[in-house]
Amino acid sequence: MTSPILYFVDDLAEGVSTGLAEGVLANTAEGVPVNTAEGVPAPAVPYHRVDPGAPQITVTDLSVTRGDGIFETAGVLHRDVQALEAHLRRFAASARILDLPAPRLEVWREAILAAVRAYDSDEPGYVKFIMTRGIEGTGVPVGWAYVATAEDFSAERGVGIRVVTLDRGYRHDVAKTSPWLLQGAKTLSYAVNKAVLREAARRGADDVLFVSSDGFALEGPTSTLLARYGDTYATPSTDQGILAGTTQASVFDWLEEQGCATEYRQITAAELPRADALWLLSSSRLAAPVQELDSMPVVVDTEMTARINAALEARVS
Amino acid sequence: MTSPILYFVDDLAEGVSTGLAEGVLANTAEGVPVNTAEGVPAPAVPYHRVDPGAPQITVTDLSVTRGDGIFETAGVLHRDVQALEAHLRRFAASARILDLPAPRLEVWREAILAAVRAYDSDEPGYVKFIMTRGIEGTGVPVGWAYVATAEDFSAERGVGIRVVTLDRGYRHDVAKTSPWLLQGAKTLSYAVNKAVLREAARRGADDVLFVSSDGFALEGPTSTLLARYGDTYATPSTDQGILAGTTQASVFDWLEEQGCATEYRQITAAELPRADALWLLSSSRLAAPVQELDSMPVVVDTEMTARINAALEARVS
Repeated sequence: MTSPILYFVDDLAEGVSTGLAEGVLANTAEGVPVNTAEGVPAPAVPYHRVDPGAPQITVTDLSVTRGDGIFETAGVLHRDVQALEAHLRRFAASARILDLPAPRLEVWREAILAAVRAYDSDEPGYVKFIMTRGIEGTGVPVGWAYVATAEDFSAERGVGIRVVTLDRGYRHDVAKTSPWLLQGAKTLSYAVNKAVLREAARRGADDVLFVSSDGFALEGPTSTLLARYGDTYATPSTDQGILAGTTQASVFDWLEEQGCATEYRQITAAELPRADALWLLSSSRLAAPVQELDSMPVVVDTEMTARINAALEARVS
Repeated sequence: MTSPILYFVDDLAEGVSTGLAEGVLANTAEGVPVNTAEGVPAPAVPYHRVDPGAPQITVTDLSVTRGDGIFETAGVLHRDVQALEAHLRRFAASARILDLPAPRLEVWREAILAAVRAYDSDEPGYVKFIMTRGIEGTGVPVGWAYVATAEDFSAERGVGIRVVTLDRGYRHDVAKTSPWLLQGAKTLSYAVNKAVLREAARRGADDVLFVSSDGFALEGPTSTLLARYGDTYATPSTDQGILAGTTQASVFDWLEEQGCATEYRQITAAELPRADALWLLSSSRLAAPVQELDSMPVVVDTEMTARINAALEARVS
């Protein structure tokens, strides 16, 4: 297992001074923090490397006290970040929903790619990048990119996963009627997304598919639903308070290249047992076929799953 | 403004070793960290003081990455913690809802009181105590008590606050039907509770009262509703996925001593404009009278508000 890499992003958002100009710790090209106040010229790179095992966050950071921030997790394969532009776009969209300063995507892109270069391993990994609202009262966001080795998901991709449907509690149209509920943003307030996995484990399952209180299939806590009916591959339309799936977008691109029909639409929970195949798609696990939904068997299309995952693994950013 | 105080809690939960016995940094009676591995006897006090301005949390702590943890905020007045036992009970209840190890309340009580003693000021303050699920993969929670000076809420208590009702998106009975949504726990996943305050500000208001998707008044993002109808003081019953208010409990105790009728019941949103008086109750701001609800004026009972706040300020733990 390769050691994790942590890069803090110094000039991370529009209209925000993070103090770099005044000479706080910045970095040299070698990634060693230097104090620019001590006569060292300002560095060309707006990020700096730190020890991921050491404390880096204060207890007054709003990520800690309020889960107030946004994140993305992208796959790292062949020393490259998968679907980086899609993740950056979604990161910016999440910032807008949370009224955070707009992240400087050119800076984030550079910092993320530098962190992945420093990871320096052929082992499959992931990069998680986070922007918090920062220390309470400062109005200055804090952000970083963290690269680490991914779990081995070969069993999930091969045999499949057992999934239970759980009520998300919201109507499917809640993002339109109540935008303050932040549905459709990838926020750090993910305690519910962890709680549902514990509920799934209690029910003997591996993962969860959220359904709306009015009966529509939504998404997993960290994944997008893909359902095949006949020759058509469908995913829930993103006007239902769910995330636009980055991995699902790649799968749709590939399916369309293969001449398969794809569609975004409302999928009712009642339709799910009639699907010819179901997958949960995510950045790190990629396409995991559903072998069981609410304790009922679902046919796993082993060949198609392997083809989808091969296509996903072949992506370059 | 008195400097904030930060105490980490070392022996914080049942069935969990935080490494104190193996000689990690602990503290002496003077609060100076010492290394017990270096021959210094294990300390009698299971907490240690650290610099609140220095980073203390790693980026892999689940509070940061998932808002996965619990907290309480209690008022500090006359160098004492208000309603500490009620806050400790609610802290333990939140831990149960999140399947966290049970906090050792006797340890937390001692650490919190020590931090408040170290705060050493007559200025009104607050103590926020947090237990996170800890660094991902370790299963060892991390916790601390942070004491700081409170905001001055005299205007809010005197003139009153402007409040808007916002849909919480959930039915009133969601905690019973879908406990995995963690309603009724005070979690670190509070991004929505901050987002609604921004929405309130956009509407020219100071605070929010959540209503359920099926039309029941619930609670504020960090407060409990108190409504007077005739001679009866009512608060929403806590079987509606809301927190048991610690300040509201103190107010009910005092009202009953005064011979006033109190009740827990369902209060519909439609009933709110007919209330004879409305307050939002919380640990730091105490009783803030509502002077405007959804842009409609509400009568402020200045005398009763002053009496309630005097009673709240007179509490000892």
